[in-house]
Amino acid sequence: MREAFEKLREKDREITRLGYALATIEWDLETKAPEKGAEERGAELSMLSMMIHDASTAEEMYSAADAIEDADLRNDAERALVRNWRKDLREEKNVPSELVGRIGYLQGAAHAKWVEARKKNDFSLFAPILKDLIDAVREKALLIAPEADPYDTLLDEFEPGMSKAVLDPLFGDLEKELHRLMDEYAPKCAHLDTSFLRRGYDRNGMESFCRYIMEKMGFDFERGTYAESAHPFTTTLGPDDIRITNRFTDEGLFDPIGSVTHETGHALYEQNAALNPEIRGTSLSGGVSMGIHESQSRFWENFMGRTRAFWEFMYPEAQKRFPSLEGISLDEFLLAVNKTEPSAIRVNADELTYSLHIILRYRMEKGIFDGSIKVEDIPSEWNRMSEEIIRYTPKTDSEGCLQDSHWAGGMFGYFPTYALGNLYAAMWREQLIDDLGGEEKLDEVLSSGNFTPITYWQKDNIWYKGGIYLPKDLLFKVTGKSLDMRPFVEYLEEKYSRLYK
Amino acid sequence: MREAFEKLREKDREITRLGYALATIEWDLETKAPEKGAEERGAELSMLSMMIHDASTAEEMYSAADAIEDADLRNDAERALVRNWRKDLREEKNVPSELVGRIGYLQGAAHAKWVEARKKNDFSLFAPILKDLIDAVREKALLIAPEADPYDTLLDEFEPGMSKAVLDPLFGDLEKELHRLMDEYAPKCAHLDTSFLRRGYDRNGMESFCRYIMEKMGFDFERGTYAESAHPFTTTLGPDDIRITNRFTDEGLFDPIGSVTHETGHALYEQNAALNPEIRGTSLSGGVSMGIHESQSRFWENFMGRTRAFWEFMYPEAQKRFPSLEGISLDEFLLAVNKTEPSAIRVNADELTYSLHIILRYRMEKGIFDGSIKVEDIPSEWNRMSEEIIRYTPKTDSEGCLQDSHWAGGMFGYFPTYALGNLYAAMWREQLIDDLGGEEKLDEVLSSGNFTPITYWQKDNIWYKGGIYLPKDLLFKVTGKSLDMRPFVEYLEEKYSRLYK
Repeated sequence: MREAFEKLREKDREITRLGYALATIEWDLETKAPEKGAEERGAELSMLSMMIHDASTAEEMYSAADAIEDADLRNDAERALVRNWRKDLREEKNVPSELVGRIGYLQGAAHAKWVEARKKNDFSLFAPILKDLIDAVREKALLIAPEADPYDTLLDEFEPGMSKAVLDPLFGDLEKELHRLMDEYAPKCAHLDTSFLRRGYDRNGMESFCRYIMEKMGFDFERGTYAESAHPFTTTLGPDDIRITNRFTDEGLFDPIGSVTHETGHALYEQNAALNPEIRGTSLSGGVSMGIHESQSRFWENFMGRTRAFWEFMYPEAQKRFPSLEGISLDEFLLAVNKTEPSAIRVNADELTYSLHIILRYRMEKGIFDGSIKVEDIPSEWNRMSEEIIRYTPKTDSEGCLQDSHWAGGMFGYFPTYALGNLYAAMWREQLIDDLGGEEKLDEVLSSGNFTPITYWQKDNIWYKGGIYLPKDLLFKVTGKSLDMRPFVEYLEEKYSRLYK
Repeated sequence: MREAFEKLREKDREITRLGYALATIEWDLETKAPEKGAEERGAELSMLSMMIHDASTAEEMYSAADAIEDADLRNDAERALVRNWRKDLREEKNVPSELVGRIGYLQGAAHAKWVEARKKNDFSLFAPILKDLIDAVREKALLIAPEADPYDTLLDEFEPGMSKAVLDPLFGDLEKELHRLMDEYAPKCAHLDTSFLRRGYDRNGMESFCRYIMEKMGFDFERGTYAESAHPFTTTLGPDDIRITNRFTDEGLFDPIGSVTHETGHALYEQNAALNPEIRGTSLSGGVSMGIHESQSRFWENFMGRTRAFWEFMYPEAQKRFPSLEGISLDEFLLAVNKTEPSAIRVNADELTYSLHIILRYRMEKGIFDGSIKVEDIPSEWNRMSEEIIRYTPKTDSEGCLQDSHWAGGMFGYFPTYALGNLYAAMWREQLIDDLGGEEKLDEVLSSGNFTPITYWQKDNIWYKGGIYLPKDLLFKVTGKSLDMRPFVEYLEEKYSRLYK
């Protein structure tokens, strides 16, 4: 019945709107709330999360979802909505509110313990609550899909269709290739002097340069804004209100630039998805998966934003604004911002080694969920794997297994999407080059400073489609290919071999 | 049953929390949302308002309210909660959702029309929707209290216990006294040169001076913050998150100072009410009435913030910060910031003439609701009354009957609370002086720059009590007197006779 579909779409808009309200409150918490106001904001977030849960699992949702027939649906967007609702409802049906509440409570408590443990550099403070949280998340995964491997279920939550069966060979091969590249290029970078990137850059100058980059990338300031926060993020507060944050805590030049190209990449996805009337205001306007979303941010942060062509245009502008860059050639600048080396902290890792940090986390999570790694052994396992995969041994738990907040937030199965983002982005780049007519054409576009041939391509091929197609279908539609690490490895090889001869 | 009370208190907290979430979204709309993001924020506000309405009128609320017995209640705060719930429920029961929705719709549409009419200076564009809105508000008032005069019902909404029977003689006498004072002092002010107040003051300097005043007044920055917006306001986003805004649109010195003392007065009320555990997080922490709230803002804006003693402390600080004040004596400064004159715009009116602007609006509203003034005659009636009451004839509708947004927001019966705020504030001041041991003592406190003897008095007598006592009961508890215009008139007479000999 068409009526049943209309009803569900109306509900979807309501739930999406509750999500926007929640995002607004979260935004306030991260950018403006006074110290002691955080508690109330947190309580409001719980309240709204509960409302979203209740609305998403109302009995009428189930009956409407059952009543919809294929013939009722007029286009791929409508089919995608129904596909997602049915998946969500099936899952929700199996998970009792008690467990949802328990996980919410454990997340809050675990986050507090994680902060303390990281501060005191003592994993054992975090271990007991982490164990409880893992048990609860496993319980949830088994309720969602009793027949499936729980970690596969978690992977599928963040990246629909993803599984260990796909990731094991993919990440296995990727690790070998990245080791080969790292072994070749890290030694060539070891003696690079990058100190000029931390020469005390003016904060206001950095802010305005970042804004300039946002403008150049096509961020619509009538439909979004930006602010400062402790950690950069992108959030959607409405179809015409997509915001990013940045941080300027030290005086490093490239940290805020890397953040702004990254977050603007995310924001452009959502700003443009919302322009498609078929998905505007619905849950499809948030994009299809974490991995595809990440491919949009990494595409700009790295695949465009660290290229010679991009900086041929941007570097004179940067030199005009920052006197400290005087005497630093474009070549020196590019060598510095692309320097590769084994390092402790994922979020600071370079483009080449970053995915190795993810492969480590993937193996840890797999081990935790198949029972081969016990929670109390995480620190020693982490250090062992870090040595083996990243070729860096953490000196402390804080720069090792306590560095990320994801597990404290109950997010297991999330990390792989970061590496998938790299692989997807390389595939988009390959196709874009093909469609533009060659790599020289892409370089011409980038060095001209008018990026619209790139963003139009992204809009047509990815952004405008929002969450209509599942990741592998979208990938196939755009590139005619399946997920493959080859374009990423070739891209790295080409880039690093040119830079560090 | 105690259980019924506990249940209602739980509901009250939930509804209060929804109100805080709504306030957060409104804050974002006013201070940060991008141009095109406003629509979604508006839709979220409607959604949350509807949720608050639904939660406030759920069937279980009625049954719980009925089940509570006096013996269940342990203190005045609990009795006040029950008193307010019963009043609200009685009202809500009589007003169908359809009418609530219709008024919401008309408010939105009327606001848009009012903006256009004011811009084009043409009341006739606003008249038809205003008429519909007045009819709907009258309909609501008659449903709430079928036996009562509708305008009395509206007055009681904003100021519990207030009625035409109280206001008619009060405002009648007040008008005469204010005319007498205006006739005496306006001519003495006519030739005062106040141009130094608009000498291009530095925006950052004004911001930091305003912050300094907030600190001196005792605003708790761990439990609140501030930002800029088109119109200054105070809002409560949580028991530990009370915020104000200010504006620095022109380079006038005293506009932002008057705003910051005013808004901080409001904020201190709510910051301190939330410290009382009996009312924290409940609807009582928002204060008792608009009039009492306004008495707290006006107390600081005018009764303290425009005195010689206050500026004996603040003026050297201001001169240090603003070189443009060099050569302007404290006397000259005080004469300028207290200048009185008949004028067009309520929000810019001085302390002496301000209440006359309210008396005009009170008479207009009374006439509109008793049918003696037709909507289409509002402009001519406004101008006639303005001439008679304020002694100023507006040159256009925009500086006359279109100047305020209240009617477009469906707020009839609200204006009188501004004048009541003046009368209450004068009574607080009289009692404070008594308790401190004389006017010289108050002056000593103010000129010392340590205002805590004043704010402690306010906290004990007013703030900490929040909404426990109805206005007239609170007034009697603190002063032992009933509402009276004498303290206000005496205060003005004394002040102006000293300033303008």
